[in-house]
Amino acid sequence: MKRIESVKNEQVKNWKKLLTKKGRDKSGQFLLEGFHLIEEALKAKLKFEAILVTNEDKIESQWQIERKKFIIVTEQVLKELSEMDTPQGVVAIVQMPTWPEQIATTGQWLLIDRVQDPGNIGTMIRTAEAAGLTGIVLGEGSVDLYNGKVVRATQGALFHIPIIKGNILELIPKFKAAGIPVFGTALEKASSYTAVESQAQFALIVGNEGQGVEKSILAECDQNIYIPIFGQAESLNVAVASGILMYYLKAIRS
Amino acid sequence: MKRIESVKNEQVKNWKKLLTKKGRDKSGQFLLEGFHLIEEALKAKLKFEAILVTNEDKIESQWQIERKKFIIVTEQVLKELSEMDTPQGVVAIVQMPTWPEQIATTGQWLLIDRVQDPGNIGTMIRTAEAAGLTGIVLGEGSVDLYNGKVVRATQGALFHIPIIKGNILELIPKFKAAGIPVFGTALEKASSYTAVESQAQFALIVGNEGQGVEKSILAECDQNIYIPIFGQAESLNVAVASGILMYYLKAIRS
Repeated sequence: MKRIESVKNEQVKNWKKLLTKKGRDKSGQFLLEGFHLIEEALKAKLKFEAILVTNEDKIESQWQIERKKFIIVTEQVLKELSEMDTPQGVVAIVQMPTWPEQIATTGQWLLIDRVQDPGNIGTMIRTAEAAGLTGIVLGEGSVDLYNGKVVRATQGALFHIPIIKGNILELIPKFKAAGIPVFGTALEKASSYTAVESQAQFALIVGNEGQGVEKSILAECDQNIYIPIFGQAESLNVAVASGILMYYLKAIRS
Repeated sequence: MKRIESVKNEQVKNWKKLLTKKGRDKSGQFLLEGFHLIEEALKAKLKFEAILVTNEDKIESQWQIERKKFIIVTEQVLKELSEMDTPQGVVAIVQMPTWPEQIATTGQWLLIDRVQDPGNIGTMIRTAEAAGLTGIVLGEGSVDLYNGKVVRATQGALFHIPIIKGNILELIPKFKAAGIPVFGTALEKASSYTAVESQAQFALIVGNEGQGVEKSILAECDQNIYIPIFGQAESLNVAVASGILMYYLKAIRS
């Protein structure tokens, strides 16, 4: 099995670039850390360039992958590529999945407008996948999908649901043309979500933690909805609100 | 206005102890950081021992509090008491609110069993307050309520809803005796939440991120419910799941 012992190794230097959005976008690869996530990515048949482990015991026998892709590295090398306080001793270099862009034609969609917190984005992806949505549109100005915190918060759901980067304002007419009702979320000039029927198809737009969905986007929606606040809170956390609305629009039917 | 310039000041040393659960429990005080949270605590009429600011400009004119409680401190002193990467220049020392223990007699309750992530606990408190619940029981083994990350994630909601520490297993009979139905959450031997009617009163129990609600607790519930997973995810984030269930049990009626 191949070994890398120096942090100055050229491959290690290249992989380190994947810790930044710029490096990831350039190469189309990202870093995946921890056993559970690697397993989810293998299940989803993502392409692996390499799996780095600090020793052979870290290799799970059920991992369906050519043996030559494993590389034994020192703890220092692994640490260079790890974002965790206590690394699990395994980091993979993986190719970003690609999804057909044939959206806005059918199904149930979550559209994310400029959400900034990686934990929120990751949790929203996890919930959308769990709710069985067709796909997610990650609007411009949202945090990067392959940010390590996002990836970890999805718990691997990002490998199981199509996630497309796009301009939400440009996509709304496509959803409408396909007969898919577009719901914005807003605190003003909106109806309580309980006034809406559950939907076989929908595009649900949720927005930035502080500012919500951009006004120009809300103006194009078929209907804007809100979740009633019965207490003194000003708003709900965007991942919680998305969960309530996705399950309301979708699962309540079952 | 009083000034403190040395990090070795005896008061500063004492306040630093409030960064630990032990120190908070001993004194009954906690640290509150940032403008929004301080404002929420003032609105809720919590007792302030002091508000430390790095300069007088940080004092908001609408803050209803005796002037003698403000103390001007150096940035180093403030940093000693701050948990944020970029402190806002204001930290308050505040007395923990107390709530009457007359629970299990009426209303809608969220019971939290051994949830570990501060962000999850804080978000759950924020959602429960927004949903207008009567109160929250923080079960033994959950993360400390006055952990700075919990407090910040609540966005101040913890000052507006009764939160009682207690033993969930011991409280269940009290809820039942008061005619309040007790719902556990579980992935097995449970009904879909959509099979349950919305409820004027309820006690909803949610549990640990990895293990869920403890089995001995589930055995005592009137009914155990789950949220259907339509995708490949193993579970939902506990704060999202709590939000879906609280709003379903409560708000769907309106």
